[in-house]
Amino acid sequence: MPPAAATLVPAFAPWLDLAGLAVFAASGALAAAKRGQTMVTLAFFALITGVGGGTMRDLLIGAPVFWVHDARAAGVCLTVAVVIWVTPERWWRGEALDWFDAVGLAAYAVYGAAKALRFGVPPLPAFLMGVVTACVGGIIRDVLAGEPSILMRPELYVTAGALASASFVLLVLAGLPVSAAATIGAVAGFALRAAAIHFHLALPAYRQRR
Amino acid sequence: MPPAAATLVPAFAPWLDLAGLAVFAASGALAAAKRGQTMVTLAFFALITGVGGGTMRDLLIGAPVFWVHDARAAGVCLTVAVVIWVTPERWWRGEALDWFDAVGLAAYAVYGAAKALRFGVPPLPAFLMGVVTACVGGIIRDVLAGEPSILMRPELYVTAGALASASFVLLVLAGLPVSAAATIGAVAGFALRAAAIHFHLALPAYRQRR
Amino acid sequence: MPPAAATLVPAFAPWLDLAGLAVFAASGALAAAKRGQTMVTLAFFALITGVGGGTMRDLLIGAPVFWVHDARAAGVCLTVAVVIWVTPERWWRGEALDWFDAVGLAAYAVYGAAKALRFGVPPLPAFLMGVVTACVGGIIRDVLAGEPSILMRPELYVTAGALASASFVLLVLAGLPVSAAATIGAVAGFALRAAAIHFHLALPAYRQRR
Repeated sequence: MPPAAATLVPAFAPWLDLAGLAVFAASGALAAAKRGQTMVTLAFFALITGVGGGTMRDLLIGAPVFWVHDARAAGVCLTVAVVIWVTPERWWRGEALDWFDAVGLAAYAVYGAAKALRFGVPPLPAFLMGVVTACVGGIIRDVLAGEPSILMRPELYVTAGALASASFVLLVLAGLPVSAAATIGAVAGFALRAAAIHFHLALPAYRQRR
Repeated sequence: MPPAAATLVPAFAPWLDLAGLAVFAASGALAAAKRGQTMVTLAFFALITGVGGGTMRDLLIGAPVFWVHDARAAGVCLTVAVVIWVTPERWWRGEALDWFDAVGLAAYAVYGAAKALRFGVPPLPAFLMGVVTACVGGIIRDVLAGEPSILMRPELYVTAGALASASFVLLVLAGLPVSAAATIGAVAGFALRAAAIHFHLALPAYRQRR
Repeated sequence: MPPAAATLVPAFAPWLDLAGLAVFAASGALAAAKRGQTMVTLAFFALITGVGGGTMRDLLIGAPVFWVHDARAAGVCLTVAVVIWVTPERWWRGEALDWFDAVGLAAYAVYGAAKALRFGVPPLPAFLMGVVTACVGGIIRDVLAGEPSILMRPELYVTAGALASASFVLLVLAGLPVSAAATIGAVAGFALRAAAIHFHLALPAYRQRR
């Protein structure tokens, strides 16, 4: 399975990667904008939210940190921050961003797991690398903003990333071609997140667990 | 001393490592459970508290991150989270966990310092790697939960980890066999933490320092 | 440019590095002291604030983490914590520390960018490595202390680090000798931070941006 992953991941990866990066950068910049912050803070939040998950993944699997050796990723994040700064506030209200974020979540979860498999990480940690890639940027954003993090909300967010990553890893283990596994995983994760947004689905909490 | 460490650490290390991992994972899962969180959050807290300190240590000393290349550590953390989820709440009340946590603290402090020495880290930073291994998981858990961290409490917690790590490093430097130094260090750290729990010992604060 | 950086950086780097380290360690220890913490907490805050930014930079660029393989940096931080603990509180009041911190900020921003260039990082991420080196220690200190971080204040702090780092990188790209670029960058960053402290300059916030 790693050889197949190694040959197939590059073909679809740049798109998943870019989708996750731009969307997460936007969610970071908007979090700073909603708190009435400055351009510099918007840029910092865009960068950390955009690249945070992938940075943690690369450090953990021992890969060169993707955005340090290729200036394009940082360029995308800083551009997104400038766009949010110069455009009218009303463009960014409403649910549109939640939906983009759902795409980024599903795409990043699959991409993170695929990259981990390609680096020879065993299936269980590779699945966790998908979750880390998809969720850690948002967690750092929330901690820096002094907010209760996405981790602490019952809403299905981390769970949707976990579903995308787990389906992808299991389907690759089952022998499916990587591109098919990636598509199914990303669609499953997006569908669960979309259902959670639309129907306000939440997981049961500790005291309601029976 | 590094050669002695290199040959002797593997003999006792897996037990120290597993003790620290399971106990810290339980303290993470319980922190999430006490806040009425979901199964996914319990699992995330178990993982991050269990492996957080060792992850930071491995990144700092340039070792491959232990749980990324061996699925068993993540398996232990996730299993602990499931056990906490499915068992009655009253099993986990009271002081029992504090005592297990004291064992984990002492074991992890010694194990972290030993691993750092084995990687050729000089004594002072190796001592600090022991403290990092023992305390960083709990610090991340507290920050994510939005709590004042163990760092900010006067109670002797970080200090007990520091005592375990410092005694171990000094005894190894003094020429003691690594297994003896590890036993003495871990017992000393556990004893101090136990005394702190039992007698409510605390360090003097800045304004009371004379 | 990387060869020039490689030969010239070592000549001025140790001084910039030590200045940043000691000053940031002091600001960390004082943050803990102001909260009436213990000696152990002062030491931990001194260490994490002193080495936090450089640690993040080294992890990101794939360099060995500077203070793990050379005990002197940790020794400086712990010594600073002891000095703050044993000296009278009134020595550390007033604005003096803000001014030292301004020196550390400018020095660390230039040093971080120079080290990144030396490791072959492209200009845009190298500029960001300067900002990370200068600001991440303070951000971690604020998050651990449960304070709104320097990131969230309109005052020109991160911006001054960004100016130092950006001027340095641009001047090196323009062909200036590294030592001249470093001096100009550090002076520019320090001047902006000094003006911000003296005139209470702040960046415009999101809602005032026209």
